[in-house]
Amino acid sequence: MNNLKFDANGLLTGIVQDSDTKQVLMVAMMNADAVKKTYQTGLAHFWSRSRKSLWLKGETSGNLMKVRKMLVDCDGDALLMFVEPQGPACHTGNQSCFFTEMEMKNAA
Amino acid sequence: MNNLKFDANGLLTGIVQDSDTKQVLMVAMMNADAVKKTYQTGLAHFWSRSRKSLWLKGETSGNLMKVRKMLVDCDGDALLMFVEPQGPACHTGNQSCFFTEMEMKNAA
Repeated sequence: MNNLKFDANGLLTGIVQDSDTKQVLMVAMMNADAVKKTYQTGLAHFWSRSRKSLWLKGETSGNLMKVRKMLVDCDGDALLMFVEPQGPACHTGNQSCFFTEMEMKNAA
Repeated sequence: MNNLKFDANGLLTGIVQDSDTKQVLMVAMMNADAVKKTYQTGLAHFWSRSRKSLWLKGETSGNLMKVRKMLVDCDGDALLMFVEPQGPACHTGNQSCFFTEMEMKNAA
């Protein structure tokens, strides 16, 4: 926890990746409490900026995310969680929140 | 571009994943200009909050990131880029900026 750098709003970026398929499922913000609860319980927690509250992912839907591994990036302001999802990550029912492709004008 | 939602600072989250290995390489912020430049050139661009300037990833190091596919998430405030990296993503020389494991107290 000591190496983590939270921004001016006390938040850092939390990325969720399926530990099995390696699909990136979602990204959300975490405050210190969310990181601590994730660490303590092994279940992904976030901070909801709209609701201004701690948020256990899947608390309502039942689609909890069991965290198998957690990596911090080189500047300490982002976490990458490898999870075993208990259901779709997205409220739309999609496995991942990233399901809309943007057309690229040029491929380099 | 019309579906993207930038925050109060005009930024959204850009996640970079290796299109081949599926490893998450880095995360950084993008403003509208960074998204547009990425779209136009097929090379990952970001917004540096510390330098307050547009940043072509690899401009100095040569480790450009060729973007093969770009997905936007369900609420339009994050982009996931699948890239072909031309070298390590991290300034430390690591392939990914996520190379430090956090111990989990409990695995759920």
